[in-house]
Amino acid sequence: MESPTFQPHEFENRIARARELMLGCQLDGLLVTSPPNFRYFTGFETQFWESPTRAWFALTPTDGPCTAIIPEIGVPAVARTWIGALRSWPAPRPADDGISLVADALRSAPRRFGRVGLEMGRESAVRMPLIDFFALKDRLTGIDLVDGSPCLWQLRAIKSAAEIGYIKESCRIVSEAFEALPRSLETGRTEREICRDLTVDMFRRGIHAVPFIAAASGQGGYPEIISSPSDRPLADGDILIVDVGATVHGYFADFDRNLGFGKISNQALEAHDAVWQATEAGIRAAKPGATMSDLWSAMSVVLERAGSTRNNVGRMGHGLGLQLTEPPSAKADDHTVLEPGMVITIEPGMEYVDGKMIVHEENLVITDTGSELLTMRAPRELPRIPT
Amino acid sequence: MESPTFQPHEFENRIARARELMLGCQLDGLLVTSPPNFRYFTGFETQFWESPTRAWFALTPTDGPCTAIIPEIGVPAVARTWIGALRSWPAPRPADDGISLVADALRSAPRRFGRVGLEMGRESAVRMPLIDFFALKDRLTGIDLVDGSPCLWQLRAIKSAAEIGYIKESCRIVSEAFEALPRSLETGRTEREICRDLTVDMFRRGIHAVPFIAAASGQGGYPEIISSPSDRPLADGDILIVDVGATVHGYFADFDRNLGFGKISNQALEAHDAVWQATEAGIRAAKPGATMSDLWSAMSVVLERAGSTRNNVGRMGHGLGLQLTEPPSAKADDHTVLEPGMVITIEPGMEYVDGKMIVHEENLVITDTGSELLTMRAPRELPRIPT
Repeated sequence: MESPTFQPHEFENRIARARELMLGCQLDGLLVTSPPNFRYFTGFETQFWESPTRAWFALTPTDGPCTAIIPEIGVPAVARTWIGALRSWPAPRPADDGISLVADALRSAPRRFGRVGLEMGRESAVRMPLIDFFALKDRLTGIDLVDGSPCLWQLRAIKSAAEIGYIKESCRIVSEAFEALPRSLETGRTEREICRDLTVDMFRRGIHAVPFIAAASGQGGYPEIISSPSDRPLADGDILIVDVGATVHGYFADFDRNLGFGKISNQALEAHDAVWQATEAGIRAAKPGATMSDLWSAMSVVLERAGSTRNNVGRMGHGLGLQLTEPPSAKADDHTVLEPGMVITIEPGMEYVDGKMIVHEENLVITDTGSELLTMRAPRELPRIPT
Repeated sequence: MESPTFQPHEFENRIARARELMLGCQLDGLLVTSPPNFRYFTGFETQFWESPTRAWFALTPTDGPCTAIIPEIGVPAVARTWIGALRSWPAPRPADDGISLVADALRSAPRRFGRVGLEMGRESAVRMPLIDFFALKDRLTGIDLVDGSPCLWQLRAIKSAAEIGYIKESCRIVSEAFEALPRSLETGRTEREICRDLTVDMFRRGIHAVPFIAAASGQGGYPEIISSPSDRPLADGDILIVDVGATVHGYFADFDRNLGFGKISNQALEAHDAVWQATEAGIRAAKPGATMSDLWSAMSVVLERAGSTRNNVGRMGHGLGLQLTEPPSAKADDHTVLEPGMVITIEPGMEYVDGKMIVHEENLVITDTGSELLTMRAPRELPRIPT
């Protein structure tokens, strides 16, 4: 029969850690509305978030049961999850889409600081109509709705063994699909066709979802790395990058691979090698006690030596988990200290001439003594498709 | 070579209509941050929205060029789109992630009402940190940030011929995949396996993305319709529903199909027939001048006659387009008048005994004289998998 994605103690640990952090942030509770945080606290697996019609809420107070306050359409499914208490309303009901229920729940929760944290800060968005947020605020006396994002991100930054297991599984599937990819490639095929075949292969290998796939290609490099695959056919001299965000039970692998078609210029190959070496430096620097800024420096030294001036990505790695990207960022000014259980990407890139970038990416988890690579390391030599 | 998803006049028409509606809503501009609205105004195709790290903005004033205010990572890609003006910053930059640029753009735009519309209302969410929204508000004098959702939804409700073409293409691909599905089914296979094979088949047939797939199954019906496919194996007497939201160039098909395994109870078959008949009634009622409430009534009469008391979905159809669900809703109290170019789902459902629902769904476009079905109509008789 069906085996649960997580055992109950996984959620008990999350709630216990959340309560510790809430205390440090002087919060009486965390009220979340976004897909990843709702899933984190309840365990509910759905893609129904694609429908913007109904708001969903999960409240974790400092004491007592966690409460899901949800549209009726979700009751039978959420009742099967770990969550203790459920309140619902017949949504959509524009005049009161859960607001009075949420206000009641907030008023009934234990109060010490008069502050409840929402996803109001960095790398967060509140998933409810803003006019409903203001209506909720108006109904509350003695309870401030404040930025709970730092607390939430700190909580989610340290992954459990079970979470790491799912990320590892995603990374294994995507790695194997990337390994097999060159065999099916030839010039003349389009980015879209190549990515479609890769997607099909990932599903065949057991991936649950592929929420993100980006492709870019051009002579000896590419100007950017985030567009959806286009109908551009690959030609002799092109380098293609494919970047994949794919999940098992919602947990992301996020990494890219580069492929060369026919004759690639020496300058491009040198840039490719420099970025591969920078990735090595980033991986070596990743260990408990190091900061994200240290990682950035380790990679920057290699890229600068190779003549890199800049790239448009804005950072050289980030956290990942229930989202494709999570804090922290590998940036000069991000001094987050790495701890065991953090999962991050190492993602250096360089624009070696105007409009031509090379970007590499690997995923790893910080361990007690260093790090463990979760992706199958990209080959040092650019894989080449004969033309 | 690459052919554009839309011709320039598509965007010129969108902007012209937006300006007309803005005037009616007394808005000086529309400032959008969410993936579908950013795509609607710029034409940019990406799944990079999976990364919550950076905010993106598109401003459409009443006069002058539309401006995309975006992270540097997006500049080369967005510069290839229709959008006229581009401003960017080296994101992520937590201290000022675009806020000063957005404030400048708002201050420079023509001002008449002192009101700019954001996605603050029904079925909308602002995709930026709320603390940045407040910081932006503080920087503006004489410009109120107000709810622009009614204006945006009115604009997007009427689809162009090109938009309808992509929805039709999505519906055709999903219909054909659903038609082929029973051939590969047998008892003992799990919801997850069945949905994975269906997903692979849709990609093979040319779908661009499958952002939503839900499955539920049980003896003679199912208690809900929104969970991700589980590891539950299908057994004799089960009815399986699979609901798919799949896209071509971002435009959704959204409909479900029911499949019976082995011997299905007469009561379940009668409920299935009643919901099929309710769908017929909904399709017949869909024409210009009818209201969403009329559609709801037409379906309700059939379901009540069959003994339905309720279901947990909360409505019996909705708009669709760049999102899986869009306003309006087929509900007793939604008096939106149907107009040519609106694309909607007809989605009746009934809970015929406690915890056992049957739900059907089709997609259609309102035409000048009635409606055109975009999905291949589900068979009246429940398709049966022999055991």
